[in-house]
Amino acid sequence: MADTIKYLLEEKDIPKTWYNIAADLPKPLPPVLHPGTGKPIGPDDLAPIFPMSLIMQEVSTDREIEIPEPVRQIYRQWRPSPLYRARRLEKALGTPARIYYKYEGVSPAGSHKPNTAVAQAFYNKEAGVKRLTTETGAGQWGSSLAFAGSLFGLEIEVFMVKVSYQQKPYRRALMETYGARCIASPSEETASGRSILARTPNSTGSLGIAISEAVERAVQRDDTKYALGSVLNHVLTHQTIIGIEAMKQLEMADDYPDVIVGCTGGGSNFAGIAFPFIGAGLRGGRKPRIVAVEPSSCPSLTKGRYAYDFGDTAHLTPLVKMHTLGSTFVPPGFHAGGLRYHGMAPLVSHVKELGLIDAVAYPQLSIFEAGVTFAKAEGIVPAPEANHAVRAAIDEALRCKREGRSEAILFNLCGHGHFDMQAYIDYFAGKLVDQPYDEKELAMALAGLPSVAAE
Amino acid sequence: MADTIKYLLEEKDIPKTWYNIAADLPKPLPPVLHPGTGKPIGPDDLAPIFPMSLIMQEVSTDREIEIPEPVRQIYRQWRPSPLYRARRLEKALGTPARIYYKYEGVSPAGSHKPNTAVAQAFYNKEAGVKRLTTETGAGQWGSSLAFAGSLFGLEIEVFMVKVSYQQKPYRRALMETYGARCIASPSEETASGRSILARTPNSTGSLGIAISEAVERAVQRDDTKYALGSVLNHVLTHQTIIGIEAMKQLEMADDYPDVIVGCTGGGSNFAGIAFPFIGAGLRGGRKPRIVAVEPSSCPSLTKGRYAYDFGDTAHLTPLVKMHTLGSTFVPPGFHAGGLRYHGMAPLVSHVKELGLIDAVAYPQLSIFEAGVTFAKAEGIVPAPEANHAVRAAIDEALRCKREGRSEAILFNLCGHGHFDMQAYIDYFAGKLVDQPYDEKELAMALAGLPSVAAE
Repeated sequence: MADTIKYLLEEKDIPKTWYNIAADLPKPLPPVLHPGTGKPIGPDDLAPIFPMSLIMQEVSTDREIEIPEPVRQIYRQWRPSPLYRARRLEKALGTPARIYYKYEGVSPAGSHKPNTAVAQAFYNKEAGVKRLTTETGAGQWGSSLAFAGSLFGLEIEVFMVKVSYQQKPYRRALMETYGARCIASPSEETASGRSILARTPNSTGSLGIAISEAVERAVQRDDTKYALGSVLNHVLTHQTIIGIEAMKQLEMADDYPDVIVGCTGGGSNFAGIAFPFIGAGLRGGRKPRIVAVEPSSCPSLTKGRYAYDFGDTAHLTPLVKMHTLGSTFVPPGFHAGGLRYHGMAPLVSHVKELGLIDAVAYPQLSIFEAGVTFAKAEGIVPAPEANHAVRAAIDEALRCKREGRSEAILFNLCGHGHFDMQAYIDYFAGKLVDQPYDEKELAMALAGLPSVAAE
Repeated sequence: MADTIKYLLEEKDIPKTWYNIAADLPKPLPPVLHPGTGKPIGPDDLAPIFPMSLIMQEVSTDREIEIPEPVRQIYRQWRPSPLYRARRLEKALGTPARIYYKYEGVSPAGSHKPNTAVAQAFYNKEAGVKRLTTETGAGQWGSSLAFAGSLFGLEIEVFMVKVSYQQKPYRRALMETYGARCIASPSEETASGRSILARTPNSTGSLGIAISEAVERAVQRDDTKYALGSVLNHVLTHQTIIGIEAMKQLEMADDYPDVIVGCTGGGSNFAGIAFPFIGAGLRGGRKPRIVAVEPSSCPSLTKGRYAYDFGDTAHLTPLVKMHTLGSTFVPPGFHAGGLRYHGMAPLVSHVKELGLIDAVAYPQLSIFEAGVTFAKAEGIVPAPEANHAVRAAIDEALRCKREGRSEAILFNLCGHGHFDMQAYIDYFAGKLVDQPYDEKELAMALAGLPSVAAE
């Protein structure tokens, strides 16, 4: 039986540095702006919410950023993560393509998120911080920060989008097992939350609202900072360990990808697998085609505008230039909570504008079909978010079959679906439908973009 | 920070043989008896339900049983599984003990069960079998056989104890994702099920009942065999890959266990970690203390009788000599469904009678307390079954602290708890109580043991 092959590095091969794509960009990232003055902000403006070490990473243009030894030490529990050649899936599809997947579900929290959660917890602990606040959608990020907090003795407060809080009690229980406090958002604990509840008592929340609440709570207290699980430059940089390892593992397989696929919500797992390869291309190496995959119900890269916008609903964050659906846009309640964000990481948006990546969008029925095909062949049940990457990878493999080409396809399987089985239950029961976003709502949200957007 | 250490073997170190403890026993296992004649049964008696290759393993006294290459190939997806030194847990406990745990939750189904599921699926496929029936309690075994069935193209029918079927929809969804059919037991599909339902329409089922149904369905059809996830000799033998790997990994750590701990339901994960070490001791090597840990609500080793009994409720199986609470005993509905079986593996029972192992029993509140302590320190949330081993390992470590001894403690973390978070939710909500078994029911069940028991 032609079976799935695992490429496993030794612990000594865990990268010693993260890769910062800012060093290789042909054009620098547009500056982050202060919403009041419209002028670029400096490191000090961010000091109330982040420790200076992370702020310096956020603005760094150094190519290599050293991974602190205590962080590498914790990474060793599950890293290097395996790279698999999906021979059983290839056989099931009858494709001549070579399909590789990097599997980040081996982390204690079950996704790629601990790669940055552990790093952020380390830097905050080092800076004397006692407590971190954050938001979470499906719960992958919240449980990862809860895990990291338990290792460093930091208190963790997670504002969880209310609909997920209610629908995903298992994720909440995981955070609480790690000792974190989990609050349904919008909540009565913040002015942003109370103001939403006053207007919309039955609000089921959104990532934008939860970010507002978490930032507000962090700013209020001196011993408290805020942590974000995606979007920001330093978060994407921490995730590049995925692509750096994958590159070494593909060397073991004596192969190089023709196509690289990742799903995109805020952009961090996609950047993690793709940026090291994009960087190698920018420095004169081979240039694989890179495909970002998003849900068609929340299609920031394929239907959003590239403009300055707020990262949150209450407009407490600075303005960043990104592909956005508008900060008031609330996507329908489809089953990939981690991809329900109105914006896209500025770095991912920037490389899209530079023509370095493609983007596609899929409705949810097709991504679950792909996930079940994958699970039957490879034995791993992907998270709904990851099913977007699985769908696109399978479609690339089927294209290779039609074209009779043997290309190498690499995708990031960013997390397992053990906490998301309700989505599979609904899929099998025929309860899932493809929910298009509201065109009018999108138009209104885009019309409401801050005026600097016109610049 | 003194951090958790991972000992990872290379793929080439995956054992080529399983270890069969029958070769080293100072006294042979009592024979399996035909319930009608009271005489020992032969291989042919088992042929309607198992393929001959597995029956020959069941009765083999060869020390080493070769692992077929296609099985090793599939093992490679997640094996060798990691051995960890739990330095963070040691620090949290302030113990001088060295705590090691072998982590079997890295398999696609999340437990040790695929070690034998893949092997059984392979041998059945080789014998031309088209369909396997089985039972499952918490669902770890059923989902593992579903996984293995999907790899070999075998149809899988799982009779799932009704209370678990209702309480664990996520486990059921996992089996269905792998393509298996999952039936709540007792069901209307078998005579055994119908007879239970006629007497007890609201029966929530038991492993003994589900075994009866699965065996009955297998016997009815020529192309169908039955697979059992624990108890039988060949199943325990397949699990010894755990202990064989652990032994090599401890060599890397330049250490050897003073104490080995495993939880026991049917006995397979316990045997998997312990038998290779017991065997080494029987052949003149060091003799670690070996501790089997069971739930005090279903205490076959500590409160059962060592006697001939049926493996199932409807008395379709042969008679085996084991520690049993009586085949009519139904334990209270505590949160470790995988340990709710009235009997114990004959091999585990036998080594207990030979004085080669100790046994202890714990109530459920104390095992969840231990599980949460472990999760906070090590980041992995154990399955409720595994929490029994965690509890005993922590207690051994605390004893070392009191006695000022630095012993090496090895335990098997047989699975993760991602599909069991409701138990943690109930624990945090104060809804879990320690449920003693019914003394009268136990007395009646023991009084009802088959008469051969008196021999």
